[in-house]
Amino acid sequence: MSILIKGVLLCAPNKHGLVDIYIEDNTIVEVSSAGKINVEAEHVVDGSNHIAFAGLINAHTHAAMTLFRGYADDLPLHEWLTNKIWPLEARLDAETVYWATRLACIEMIRTGTTTFNDMYFFMEDVAKAVRDSGIRAVLSYGFIDLFDEEKREVEIKRTENFVRFVEGLGCSRVKAAVGPHAIYTVSRDGLIWAKEYADEKGLILHIHLSETKKEVEECQKEYGESPVKYLDSIGFLGKNVVAAHAVWVSDNDAQILGRRGVSIAHCPVSNMKLGVGRAMPYQTLRNVGVNIALGTDGCASNNNLDMIEEMKVAALLHKMSGDPTVLNAHEALAMGSVNGAIALGINSGRIEEGAVADIVLMDTRSSRHVPGYNAISDLVYSSTAAQIDTVICDGRFVMKNGVIESEAEVLDKVKKLAFDLVGRESN
Amino acid sequence: MSILIKGVLLCAPNKHGLVDIYIEDNTIVEVSSAGKINVEAEHVVDGSNHIAFAGLINAHTHAAMTLFRGYADDLPLHEWLTNKIWPLEARLDAETVYWATRLACIEMIRTGTTTFNDMYFFMEDVAKAVRDSGIRAVLSYGFIDLFDEEKREVEIKRTENFVRFVEGLGCSRVKAAVGPHAIYTVSRDGLIWAKEYADEKGLILHIHLSETKKEVEECQKEYGESPVKYLDSIGFLGKNVVAAHAVWVSDNDAQILGRRGVSIAHCPVSNMKLGVGRAMPYQTLRNVGVNIALGTDGCASNNNLDMIEEMKVAALLHKMSGDPTVLNAHEALAMGSVNGAIALGINSGRIEEGAVADIVLMDTRSSRHVPGYNAISDLVYSSTAAQIDTVICDGRFVMKNGVIESEAEVLDKVKKLAFDLVGRESN
Repeated sequence: MSILIKGVLLCAPNKHGLVDIYIEDNTIVEVSSAGKINVEAEHVVDGSNHIAFAGLINAHTHAAMTLFRGYADDLPLHEWLTNKIWPLEARLDAETVYWATRLACIEMIRTGTTTFNDMYFFMEDVAKAVRDSGIRAVLSYGFIDLFDEEKREVEIKRTENFVRFVEGLGCSRVKAAVGPHAIYTVSRDGLIWAKEYADEKGLILHIHLSETKKEVEECQKEYGESPVKYLDSIGFLGKNVVAAHAVWVSDNDAQILGRRGVSIAHCPVSNMKLGVGRAMPYQTLRNVGVNIALGTDGCASNNNLDMIEEMKVAALLHKMSGDPTVLNAHEALAMGSVNGAIALGINSGRIEEGAVADIVLMDTRSSRHVPGYNAISDLVYSSTAAQIDTVICDGRFVMKNGVIESEAEVLDKVKKLAFDLVGRESN
Repeated sequence: MSILIKGVLLCAPNKHGLVDIYIEDNTIVEVSSAGKINVEAEHVVDGSNHIAFAGLINAHTHAAMTLFRGYADDLPLHEWLTNKIWPLEARLDAETVYWATRLACIEMIRTGTTTFNDMYFFMEDVAKAVRDSGIRAVLSYGFIDLFDEEKREVEIKRTENFVRFVEGLGCSRVKAAVGPHAIYTVSRDGLIWAKEYADEKGLILHIHLSETKKEVEECQKEYGESPVKYLDSIGFLGKNVVAAHAVWVSDNDAQILGRRGVSIAHCPVSNMKLGVGRAMPYQTLRNVGVNIALGTDGCASNNNLDMIEEMKVAALLHKMSGDPTVLNAHEALAMGSVNGAIALGINSGRIEEGAVADIVLMDTRSSRHVPGYNAISDLVYSSTAAQIDTVICDGRFVMKNGVIESEAEVLDKVKKLAFDLVGRESN
């Protein structure tokens, strides 16, 4: 398949201009000034009145938690988890997770996300949902041994089985990762196994890290050091680690993360909504060279998967401290795109020759883009994701002119399954 | 004219349910359980798959600053104002302000806002733009005497002239207010005149208050007290005062504001983007009974007029401190609606019998509303304003099924005027 996008305003960090984009199979073959590409393509897209940006990359989420959107908000963290979320999660089944992930994929497509980094349960079904949705994901089974040797063996088997399952799935858009949940849910042996297994298989290691003050204080009590130092002391940290949150990290922690080449998946909306009590130290982490990507976290704590919103909130949160020059629109866009690609080790996040063809088109015929002095500022600070009408992932249309196949069916299906799960009647 | 909205899910703070809504002329005549109203109406709206909420009230903005959207971001506050915004404002003319305000009104309609509280220049033209747009506004000429007696006389005349102009306009949707800009731009005599004139005429007093630390420090140096105490000492504070920002207020200031019945227009996005350095002390102000409404501020510092986004960011900002129970979805919705009506002294912000008919319909056929356990949570935390398709203001459709009259014309006009203003070519 080939696609030619003609005369579109390209928006990339520190770069913009009117271009033509030519795609063959799943790859961007040529990006040239508008009017310069003269080839026959199977699909020609008129890019006028649109901006194009690289498919956004949601570097930390739990896609199937769309099921819990609006089920429990505005509660203390512990009460929310133990009384609301966990009891429901204990009743999940494979079918429900499949459809809830399909719903999440639809929401991501509509909001310009073409890749996500997920950790959850029933991951075989998550993988099938991603395959069927046409987008890209890095998927890890949430490894939780609760410091129990027997459980650890079960989790090791489940992780290995899932990695084999993905190998057998034969879908280049789905990559397996290893997902030790956090230092407070996984034993030292579990963490070490995960690290060695990920290195051996060349996989990403996805972990929650220093999200709350409580996590850091308990780690200090248990191991006499911070979560970052603890992970470093067991050799866990490296270039394949994607650490979600990293809110409560010290200057010294930041140095370690920078030295080890760890990527962070920053989740500002979730952190704020759950009241983690401070902002991730963005400037400190950036200054020591940590690659900072952006994630929405799950819908239970956000409550959507909208990376356009996440980019704006990230900028707002870090300017708030008193310096409006911090985290400008270009940086926010980089965090939402190319930094995520670096974190996940994928050849995406850029509209450049040789990158995979993950491209989002946003209609700018909206007051939000008038006057239109600065397309990147308008994208990050003013637009709504709802203006996105066409999304290409891996060289194929996953939304064209606002239409996603089987969207209504998926919405209906999830509504039914979700209300069955919570044992209530839908409206 | 009469309108019957049938079978819509009403969303109001601490209240929701399926209802019929009947409107005659500009007033809500009846709200009953769905299926209960059997009258002939000129217009019947099918409310299925929609939620209805009271038209949102933007309690502090500078509508015509849509002109400056994206013109200058991510700069230090002082540099932004003196090198970017003020030089452009010095070149504004009446026609440009008229069209820029028309653009703002379109954006507000699309995002569910039916009333705004504005302070700017060329206010006669702002008033005409509001009249022509079909929405509601409280408008004040930005009174700035810079401590100069001659200027003060000019500003007094301009304010009086504008109030007379609005009286003569004969549009019930447009109300005049008195707008002494701030304590650092208006003399004591100017403030006192504004207060007395507003009281005499029964008008709202709209002022910027304690937005930055610098403002408070300079006031302390100049007058030996905080801006709030200074205003109180000259008898300025009362129930008709709408104070924008109130970020840097002390506990004692909060007590005074509560005692005087002042309303605050909280502008979280603008405060964060401009880096004012801390959050407005929401809980302190709320605990002493201050009425807290919500505003977007101007597009130069936001960069949109989206009150749906503003409600979510308000909740996020105040939870962030460490308590996720603070500012729940119901409170956010109240801040965006009924609290604004209280601040501006208008009979709106509620879908109740006897209130003016300012009603917004949002299509919930979106992943953002699935499963749909809690319509108010979904509205505040998950939705996008782009799902709004029908807006009624003062009993008339200002948007019907996604269509606003002369929208394309206004967008084109502003684009041209804006690029002329900055002396650049449009894309």
